[in-house]
Order: sequence, then C-alpha cells, then structure tokens
Amino acid sequence: HTRNHHSVGIIGAPFWKGQPKDGVEKGPDLIRSTGLVEKLKGQGCSVRDYGNLKFEHVPDDQPIEKVQRPRSVGHANKQLADAVHMIKKDGHTCVLLGGDHSLAIGSILGHAASQKELCVVWVDAHADINTPTTTLTGNMHGQPVSFLIREFHSKIPVMPGFSWIKPCISAQDIVYIGLRDVDPAEHYILKHLGIKFFSMTDVDRLGIAKVMEETCDHIFSKGKRPIHLSYDIDALDPSVSPATGTPVMGGLTYREGIYITEQICQTGMLSALDVVEVNPKMARAEEEISSTAKTAVDVILGCFGRVREGSHTPDYHMPKP
Amino acid sequence: HTRNHHSVGIIGAPFWKGQPKDGVEKGPDLIRSTGLVEKLKGQGCSVRDYGNLKFEHVPDDQPIEKVQRPRSVGHANKQLADAVHMIKKDGHTCVLLGGDHSLAIGSILGHAASQKELCVVWVDAHADINTPTTTLTGNMHGQPVSFLIREFHSKIPVMPGFSWIKPCISAQDIVYIGLRDVDPAEHYILKHLGIKFFSMTDVDRLGIAKVMEETCDHIFSKGKRPIHLSYDIDALDPSVSPATGTPVMGGLTYREGIYITEQICQTGMLSALDVVEVNPKMARAEEEISSTAKTAVDVILGCFGRVREGSHTPDYHMPKP
Amino acid sequence: HTRNHHSVGIIGAPFWKGQPKDGVEKGPDLIRSTGLVEKLKGQGCSVRDYGNLKFEHVPDDQPIEKVQRPRSVGHANKQLADAVHMIKKDGHTCVLLGGDHSLAIGSILGHAASQKELCVVWVDAHADINTPTTTLTGNMHGQPVSFLIREFHSKIPVMPGFSWIKPCISAQDIVYIGLRDVDPAEHYILKHLGIKFFSMTDVDRLGIAKVMEETCDHIFSKGKRPIHLSYDIDALDPSVSPATGTPVMGGLTYREGIYITEQICQTGMLSALDVVEVNPKMARAEEEISSTAKTAVDVILGCFGRVREGSHTPDYHMPKP
Ligand SMILES: [Mn+2]
Ligand SMILES: [Mn+2]
Ligand SMILES: [Mn+2]
Ligand SMILES: [Mn+2]
Ligand SMILES: [Mn+2]
Ligand SMILES: [Mn+2]
Repeated sequence: HTRNHHSVGIIGAPFWKGQPKDGVEKGPDLIRSTGLVEKLKGQGCSVRDYGNLKFEHVPDDQPIEKVQRPRSVGHANKQLADAVHMIKKDGHTCVLLGGDHSLAIGSILGHAASQKELCVVWVDAHADINTPTTTLTGNMHGQPVSFLIREFHSKIPVMPGFSWIKPCISAQDIVYIGLRDVDPAEHYILKHLGIKFFSMTDVDRLGIAKVMEETCDHIFSKGKRPIHLSYDIDALDPSVSPATGTPVMGGLTYREGIYITEQICQTGMLSALDVVEVNPKMARAEEEISSTAKTAVDVILGCFGRVREGSHTPDYHMPKP
Repeated sequence: HTRNHHSVGIIGAPFWKGQPKDGVEKGPDLIRSTGLVEKLKGQGCSVRDYGNLKFEHVPDDQPIEKVQRPRSVGHANKQLADAVHMIKKDGHTCVLLGGDHSLAIGSILGHAASQKELCVVWVDAHADINTPTTTLTGNMHGQPVSFLIREFHSKIPVMPGFSWIKPCISAQDIVYIGLRDVDPAEHYILKHLGIKFFSMTDVDRLGIAKVMEETCDHIFSKGKRPIHLSYDIDALDPSVSPATGTPVMGGLTYREGIYITEQICQTGMLSALDVVEVNPKMARAEEEISSTAKTAVDVILGCFGRVREGSHTPDYHMPKP
Repeated sequence: HTRNHHSVGIIGAPFWKGQPKDGVEKGPDLIRSTGLVEKLKGQGCSVRDYGNLKFEHVPDDQPIEKVQRPRSVGHANKQLADAVHMIKKDGHTCVLLGGDHSLAIGSILGHAASQKELCVVWVDAHADINTPTTTLTGNMHGQPVSFLIREFHSKIPVMPGFSWIKPCISAQDIVYIGLRDVDPAEHYILKHLGIKFFSMTDVDRLGIAKVMEETCDHIFSKGKRPIHLSYDIDALDPSVSPATGTPVMGGLTYREGIYITEQICQTGMLSALDVVEVNPKMARAEEEISSTAKTAVDVILGCFGRVREGSHTPDYHMPKP
C-alpha cells in the first residue's frame, strides 16, 4: 500500500427526530472532538469541514398514523440532501456525521442528485426497511431504505414533508452487512425484493473476507460504480460501540468493522459515507463514550486510506545513518 | 427462512449435587424469569412448562471412594429420566433447564427411552467423561458421559443409586464441541473410544461453520436421527456467560454459540435440549447474571427457529399503503 | 496428542530502559508468581529457572541523537546474550521473561551464537524495525529488529554500547504476525526488504490457521530450522492483555494467540522464546494484571506442549473399576 489522496467533505447533522432517544444529536461534535479532522489530514487527506446543519423547529408535527415527527424528518432530510449535493459538486467524498439513521434518506438522495448509478452498502444490525405502514415503533430511523427503492415506491404512502422524495436506487443496488434484528415485515420485504444481505449468520458462515468479496461482486456486477456506504455504528458489537440507541448482541467485531472499510476504500469507488447512531447519552460510563467515538473515527479513517499494515508515500526515502 | 412450528416442553431441575458450588439450583427459575416462555411463544412455538422437579433429601449419602453424593445424583436423575420420558411421550421437544451437568444422565436416558437411535451433540468446555475411578474431583457433573456409552459399561463400577442406568449410546453417537479443559484420563478415553470431538483448537482451525458441517455429517452418517443437544453454558467464553461454576478462558463467542443452535435447528431433528450450569451465585455483578441468563435464553430460542436474518410466516401479506 | 518432553530454561530480565514507562521491569516476577514453573512441570516439562539478570546502572547515558539510553540498552543486551547462549549450551529451550522488547536483541543474538540458521517469528502489534535514524520516539523497544538483519547493517549508525552487535538473520528469516501500528518508515523497510508479515488485515482475511500454515511454509522453505519466537504481549487485544505499555485496539484474540503457540510447538523446532512487555503498572485494576499475567503464562504453556484438546502420556492405563 502506498497512500492515496482523498478529498473529504464533512457535514454534521445533529438530528435525533427519527427516533425517540435523547443524545444522538451530539454525535457529530463528539466524533469531531475525537480528532477526526486532524487524523484524516495526518494520513494525507485534504479535508473541508462544512460544519453542522441547523434544523428549524417544525411546529404541529403530529404523527401520521404511527409515524412520529414526519414533517421534521422530511424537512431535515431535504436540507441534508441539498448540503450533500453541494459537497459532491465541490468534488469531495462526502462524510455525513449523524444523527440518527433516518438521515440516510437525505444523504443518499443528495448523493444521487450528483452521481448517477450509485450503489449502497448498508452496515447495520437492522434493515431499516420498514414502511410507514409496517413500522412497529413509528420511528423513521427504521424506515429510510423503504423510501429509496424504486420497486417499492407504490407501497409508500404520501406523507407531509416527503413530497420531494423520489426513489433513486433499485433493489439490486443495495447490500446489507451485519443484520441480526429484523422485523417479520422487513424480512418479507428483503426476500420479496430479492435484496442481497449478509446477516450475522452469513458472516459467521462465510467470514468477513468472503462477505466483502461477494459484496463487491454484487455491487460491481455491471461494472464499477460509486459507492454510498451507510454505516450504522450499531452494526458493531455493543462491547465495541456501546454508546448507541438500539444495541443488539452478537455484532461485528472491531476488526470486522474496520476490514469492511479497508475493502470499500480499496475499491477506489467510495463516494459518500454516513456514520450514524453514535449516542453518548446511551453510555453507562465515560469510557463507553470514548471507545464508541474512537471506533467511529477509525471507521472513517479506514474509509480514507488507513491500512493496518501501515503505509508510506511513494517518494519516501530512508534517512542516511 | 419461514417459521417452523415447534412444540416445546420445559422441565426445570434445580439440582446442584453433581458439583460443590451453591447457586446452580437457581438456574431454571433465572432462565424462566428472563422471559423464556413468552419469547418462545413470540416466535411461534407452542410451549408447555412442566415446572420444576422436587428432589427429596437422600440421607446418609456418603462418598463412594472419591465420588460425592452418588445416591442423590442417581435418584435425581431417575426422577428426571421419568419426566423427560413423559414429556417426549406428550409429543414435545424436551428442554431441560439445569442444574448441573450430571443431569444429562437422566435427560439422555429418559429421552432414549422414547426415542431409539438418538445421537448426542455435547457443547462444553469439558468432556465430562471421567469415570468414578478416574475422577480427580469426585464431582458427578464431570462424569455423566461415562455412564451413557455402551462400549464403556464394563469400566464403570456399580454404585448405589445407579443400578437403574443402562448405557444408551455408542461412542460414535456423540460429538463434542468446545473442549478446552480435558483431564489426561478423559483424553485417553476420547482417543481410545475414537469419539469425535472439536476442541477449541479445531474451532480455531476449521471455523464454526465447518465444525457444524462435520458434526452433522458425523451424526447423520447412517441417516438422519433424533438429536439430543446437551449445552453446558461454560462452552461459551466467560466474557459471554460468566455466571457458571467452572469457567475456562478461550471459549466460544456468543455468535459461535448461537450459530450452533441455528444449525442444529435447521436439521429439523432436535428432539431434546439441556441447558445447564447457569449459576447466578458465581457472578461478580448483577450484569453478569443477566448477560448469562440472556445468553441461555438465546441458545434456547436459536434451537427453536429464531434466525438472525429474521423470518416471516408463509402467509405474510404487506399491508396496503 | 501425547505429551512431549521439553527441557525449559528460564531467564528473567527486569529491564525497562528500552522505553519510558515504569513497571515493565516487574514482568518476570509477575509471570513467575502466576505459577509458571509449577504449571510447566505439571505438564511434564523439566524446568530450570536461572533467575533474574541484574543490570548495573550505566552512568552518563546521554541520548545519541534521538535514541534514549543507548549504553544501558546495549550493555543489558550483552548480558542477556551471554545468559541465553549459556542456557542454550545447557541444552534447554530458552525462555526470556521481559522486560521490554529491546531485549530481543540480546535474546536473539545469544540464541544465534549457539544455533546457526535460526529463524524468527515475531508476534507483535508493532514491527519494532525502526532504526536509530528513523525512530520517532527514540525508544529502543521500537528498533530491535533493525539491528538483527544483515541486509540492513549499513543503515545502522554506530552507537556506544552496540559495538558487539553483528546482525545474525536475513530479511527472509523473519515473519511478523499481528501488525496494526506500523510507522511509515517501518512500512517502507518491510516492503523494501521484502519481509514476510501478516498484519491484522491479513489475519482477518486468511484466518489464523492459514496464517500459521503460511508462516511455517515461509520459515521452513529451505528445510526445518530452529525457531526463535519473540512474543510481544501487545500483539493480543487490549481486552485480553491490558497491562502493557503500548496497547493497540483490534488485536489477536486469546484463542488466536494460543493457536499460534500450539502450532509453533507442533513444529518441534521451538528453540527460544521471548515473552515481553507485560507491565503491571499499566493496569487500571488488579484484574487486568492477573488476566495479562495468566495470558502470558498460557502463551508459554502453549509453546511447551499444552494443547486444548488435552493430552495423556503414552503409558497411560485406565484404573480398574
Ligand atoms: Mn441499527
Ligand atoms: Mn440503522
Ligand atoms: Mn463444562
Ligand atoms: Mn458440562
Ligand atoms: Mn508491541
Ligand atoms: Mn514489540
């Protein structure tokens, strides 16, 4: 490995209204304060930090059937989509720091606005593919994928705040890694649409190396194309990233989590990255906050050229003794 | 995966006298109070809970040579064998909640009384195959397998409380998974009888997927047959299930432990299950009790159709938007 | 497995001056007090403990450029080399208990003095192959390998205390396992010299079994030869061995760490072993000290015949019932 140059544009979205738990809006600043920008620069990236989005209060945001805070989620994602679109037009690989995973709607739509033919690698304990009618909790962070898939458009009810949304990927354009807490409706949808996924059972059976090989084979089956990596920190085991709202036992190890990023980076096709669901208020101790934040940073570093064997610039010369 | 229906019969055996440590008799109620029955029903099983066996005090239960409390162990296992036999006649897959692992004597003999040609998958850090003459500790929970194997019958001394026991499996009918603390005598016996085992070294070498493939190949080499899965919670790493009497470093991960159950379930041949050696008094903190109990429950759920990728009933239909 | 006889000679080197952190000089006695000698004898080894080296204070040990305490490191390693040479002449497999990893200079040179054609397996999070001119920290424990490699001799400046040192291995005679924190200069050196290494990425990709196969293929490509295993406890994950000076996330599991020793033992070619960088003062709790020490002991036991499936002597006979 020699170092590649990456141009990274960072956008923070301190948004929590896709789920009920306080604290996930603190994710962007926590991840930054763990040294993200300096570490990216230290490994040879150029970095522009676009700061945090500011979300206005949406009044009278009553539930639509079960769905909680639909207008707030819709408007925040519109703002985010515009920001991501701009960052892509500026020529960066876009990094979204969440916030909850409902933000993937705006991040992926904004990305798709500038980048045709993108594909999605969704690393998560959850499939996040409920619809407003199948959701059991009403939380939008369990539904973003359902809004993005073309084949599914007719199943999605019209909701206030969501009229701007046009699905931008096909069912065969997304691969899941890490699933282990999937609702019956979600399982039906995954199978019905023929979506490729690697549950933790599959990771156990195949090993993470084969999972990444098959993931790349799937997304690049019709040629290389830009990747949107949507990385929910709860994909990792709670022993690695405890500070998150919906932890599930039996997750990816730190090593598996980093291996995924190394392999995605090595494709040379990473075009946008979400790191979401870091929630410091879910930690039971200060150490759980710092280990989760460090892991989130390491995920991002792995996406932008850090390799565990080390690396050196092509023009490296040994000093004379 | 679509859901299969399982009919589960639960029997608790709050028995500790196969080993010296206080607390393992609390296993059955701890596992129940972690939501076992509701969760089984929630995943589509029908469940009958037969409650806990009541064991009478056996007076004057002096050691026979080294063996501790032989009459108590013999009589408790007779009671258990009768109960398991009945539960099998009632048509259930039988789940024994232990108690210590000496209970496998009664559980497997009771199972064999109704089910010819069964085979045993023994998941454990220990081989539990000492005889009353080779045992170093005198504890019966380190000896149950020696009473069950036909080829070995002549090596077992006659003991009070054990006259009802007739061995019911051959050496090739049992497979071990997870061994990492095996006495020299036990190693001699395993090799001498040609018993199939996967030590943790083998799990490291082959991976859990290949281990389960080879396990199924071995037990089904002469055709499919009913499986008795005897699952000692100490097979799992102490970081996963600390609340147990004889923890050994370097155990199965939570994921490996669950993968075993998913694969056993998928054979369709699981006929009886023991979950033993959960001992809340060995925990150093409340959290260790709950994580061990939750793991025990997850082991049972995996045996009865829970899969990490999720599942839906064959008649599932999407609600209209 | 039947037990092999091993003759073990133990030498303690309570030396810390290859790095700045207090406490690593307590490693030898901590490892001993965890029962090392008794456990080795218990598994059939004959053991001679040569005690601890005593290192005299070297006055006026000013840095040479960045390099800290060069005269102390040079002299301590000369003492150690002489001790290891003697232990090898006495016919033992030599076990060095460190102390910091700069001691590998003396351990390997002393070993090489009695044993031509040795090869080195270096298990470590770090490559420890900086030179006195590339080092960023000035700490000698990050440089030992650079002094040992013939092809590299011209790159090493002359330093007080190091005049006795003649490199004793070629670049193709060393294999690294566990790398995940490698400086750019070190990465350049590894690639430039064509040194074989398995980073944690490689361990994730290949699995530890294949890593050990390829390791043995590499070191024995021209026939079997004596192995010097230099085992830095920080190769293991900090959750396994927290009590060390430079822990790095994402390390080897306990099981992988032990698997390495089992495979090295099975070659029958282990001729010397270093276990270094155990530092009780880096622990945050008593339990971290004991788990690190127990792990260090288990590493040593695995090198000398302990196998997780158990073992028995060839003359074992079952007692009559
Ligand atoms: Mn999630
Ligand atoms: Mn998610
Ligand atoms: Mn056990
Ligand atoms: Mn057992
Ligand atoms: Mn190191
Ligand atoms: Mn080292």
